[in-house]
Amino acid sequence: MSAETAQDFDAGISPPAVILAAGQGWRLARREDKTPKPARSLLGLSLAERTLSSCMAAGIQRFVVVLGHLADEVRAHFEKIAAKRGCDVEFVTAPDWQLGNGASALVASKKVGAATFLLTMVDHLLDPALIHRVLRTRPKQGEVCLGVDRRKAAIFDLDDVTKVGLSNDRVSRIGKTLAEWDAADTGVFLCTPALFEGLKRARAKNRHSLSDGIAELAASGHVLAVDVSGESWLDVDTPAAHQEARRRLLASLTKGGEDGYVSARLNRPVSTRLSARLAGTGITPNQITLLSFAISLVGAALFARGQHLAGVLGGLLVQISSVLDGCDGEIARLKHLTTPRGAWLDTLLDRYSDLLIALAVTFAYAAAHPGPLPWLAGFIAVCGFTLASYVTKEFALRLGRPYPNDVLNRLKRRDLRLLVICLGAIVNRPFEALLAVGALSHACVLGVLIRGWLGSKAVPSR
Amino acid sequence: MSAETAQDFDAGISPPAVILAAGQGWRLARREDKTPKPARSLLGLSLAERTLSSCMAAGIQRFVVVLGHLADEVRAHFEKIAAKRGCDVEFVTAPDWQLGNGASALVASKKVGAATFLLTMVDHLLDPALIHRVLRTRPKQGEVCLGVDRRKAAIFDLDDVTKVGLSNDRVSRIGKTLAEWDAADTGVFLCTPALFEGLKRARAKNRHSLSDGIAELAASGHVLAVDVSGESWLDVDTPAAHQEARRRLLASLTKGGEDGYVSARLNRPVSTRLSARLAGTGITPNQITLLSFAISLVGAALFARGQHLAGVLGGLLVQISSVLDGCDGEIARLKHLTTPRGAWLDTLLDRYSDLLIALAVTFAYAAAHPGPLPWLAGFIAVCGFTLASYVTKEFALRLGRPYPNDVLNRLKRRDLRLLVICLGAIVNRPFEALLAVGALSHACVLGVLIRGWLGSKAVPSR
Repeated sequence: MSAETAQDFDAGISPPAVILAAGQGWRLARREDKTPKPARSLLGLSLAERTLSSCMAAGIQRFVVVLGHLADEVRAHFEKIAAKRGCDVEFVTAPDWQLGNGASALVASKKVGAATFLLTMVDHLLDPALIHRVLRTRPKQGEVCLGVDRRKAAIFDLDDVTKVGLSNDRVSRIGKTLAEWDAADTGVFLCTPALFEGLKRARAKNRHSLSDGIAELAASGHVLAVDVSGESWLDVDTPAAHQEARRRLLASLTKGGEDGYVSARLNRPVSTRLSARLAGTGITPNQITLLSFAISLVGAALFARGQHLAGVLGGLLVQISSVLDGCDGEIARLKHLTTPRGAWLDTLLDRYSDLLIALAVTFAYAAAHPGPLPWLAGFIAVCGFTLASYVTKEFALRLGRPYPNDVLNRLKRRDLRLLVICLGAIVNRPFEALLAVGALSHACVLGVLIRGWLGSKAVPSR
Repeated sequence: MSAETAQDFDAGISPPAVILAAGQGWRLARREDKTPKPARSLLGLSLAERTLSSCMAAGIQRFVVVLGHLADEVRAHFEKIAAKRGCDVEFVTAPDWQLGNGASALVASKKVGAATFLLTMVDHLLDPALIHRVLRTRPKQGEVCLGVDRRKAAIFDLDDVTKVGLSNDRVSRIGKTLAEWDAADTGVFLCTPALFEGLKRARAKNRHSLSDGIAELAASGHVLAVDVSGESWLDVDTPAAHQEARRRLLASLTKGGEDGYVSARLNRPVSTRLSARLAGTGITPNQITLLSFAISLVGAALFARGQHLAGVLGGLLVQISSVLDGCDGEIARLKHLTTPRGAWLDTLLDRYSDLLIALAVTFAYAAAHPGPLPWLAGFIAVCGFTLASYVTKEFALRLGRPYPNDVLNRLKRRDLRLLVICLGAIVNRPFEALLAVGALSHACVLGVLIRGWLGSKAVPSR
């Protein structure tokens, strides 16, 4: 993959990534645990799979994995991941990996030849956006780029992190014990083969860490600092760091600001805890989507009986289904398994679930209250639900921009209407609750309609 | 607008357009009609407004209009259009316009200076795509580009059209009476000031038509032919050509292949005739949208009475509303008035209209047939309608491409369901018709769901 790859890179094709997976990781390992560190699980994915899938999300397809400690086990683990994710992995073994990670990195030169390549560690939790920012740089011949983080206050385990001193956009010094420093080394490099020259010069001085090799290049001004401040990265090398990685991954699930009121305050805190447990099992996001749908159907069937106790049970099931409805997406994001297909299935089943719940509640009320009025009201309410989902899709398609997550959008969301119906069922007023959220949905649709009218061009487009 | 404009053009900003509007147009004019030719109406827009709006649709914002015959009236007419459409129009008067259109074109040199400019005639019906293709060329200094059409069989009024002989991609000869010719002159030019040199050389020989000037430049190989075959253009200079222009504009309304079965075969033929009449009035597309909605509401109210005769009347009104629902878009396209706002209003009112029609039909049937079953069935049917609209929007947003207009898409369209309900009402079975189209809608939604599932990626996106 040598000369060809260098051209590919210039043409905008992603370079290969060298993953250092030779170390022992004794600080993280438990005594009784024989699992090699790269195979150590973090919320349902091994550290190795997280690193590969993060790199793949940033566009990388080909990997060179450097093996050392427990080489056979680690290799087998990576081969399993490669088959599952459909990427191309080559292996190279570092005989003297115990000397340091620089000694491990050096053996990769056999595989990358003259190509530019990404270099990182198997035990780093990296946001794909960080990798992407490093990939956007273009090191010249003789240079190496290093992603650095200037936000000192946000760095986890300051004692253990490798620090760099900067001179303009160049790294001037590097080490764990610098007294004065400007930024942290994130462990993500974009390298030309110059890296190997630096490592060899350090080796000649009997220094064998990657930092030693980088320090050699930095001394001659050949290490460019790429500022990736603001992106998440973490060296998962201690139990405390492992806990922090878990915490960060779970916190990232509630980000984005797209949640409704109930989702943000009630459903998410429960569903993320549940997702954290479910991620470790083999259950897939689509299976959870189907389970959530099935539970809502049982809830609807209980509503249809029209009894208070059955209604309470139905309401609780519907709320459980609503919480589970968050887990499918969360687990997909946690395990890098998000697919258009999954989102498609989830959204359509939600619409049918809404319809059947509303139908059951109306049916039960109409059975006890003859005459057309209950049906009329339930009819209008359920149309409000579907139109509430429809109107923002139509907005996005007609006006060419997504509808913002404003008050109207949050008030017409499924999380809120299901909770209101659940609460209504608990106080034996499910139908009244249905009508209330139906009316609210129609009001929100009208609001979005007006917003779309005012926000769209009244003059012919050119 | 001289030197600056030449730079703008190189930077991708559209050049100004010179519109020749000086001629008498006696062949089109009626004896008793004092309207100058540019103000002559064609399906609700004057020839002048059609030319300006076509140019604007191709990106042009600034115009130089050459006046001659009835200069004051024509100027006032263009000023009205400029105010309505928000474009920039300058005027220049050709004192000797009666000599020929070359003499008219020559006076434009005062306004365009050294700029590249588009040149066309006020009485040409032009598809914006044709103008766009001519604008994509870049004539060098000393050159002029001419849009030519090689499809001889498709040319209207072969006797009257100006013909060109081609030598590779250059025009070698031009004239109305060429014995051998390769393509027709569409009357759309992209010119450098070299045009004026050609016109002056022709004038010295006492020749004053635009073709004479072009012939001078063609003789030295300075006229590039731009092949625009396949795009619609028409010189509207006779009553027969005016009829042909009407025919083409109306035919273009049914193009695109996005119509449902009923729309294509029943509604469109009626609605285009109606639009042709309505285009001449001051009624706006949004007013028609509201009228169509109001008529459907009256139809729904009649359905709710549950009597056969009222139902028949209701059914007919609903079908009339369905036909009118095509007119708003047609008139908008005919009069270059398409707006995102109009499409937004139309689509949302359609959803509410569907809901109220289904509600009324169910209400009437349930009144005559006590028990929950009619309501249950009607409930499910109406959700089928909204979901049918919803599912293809969701498809477009989730999968990033529009859902194709396949059988499923045509079978779940509003045109079909409204006609079936109308026919059901005529045979006094509106509820059964509602259930039939409701079931059909759900079947189509399921079909689209499956198609989306099979057509979406099951592996994580990268």
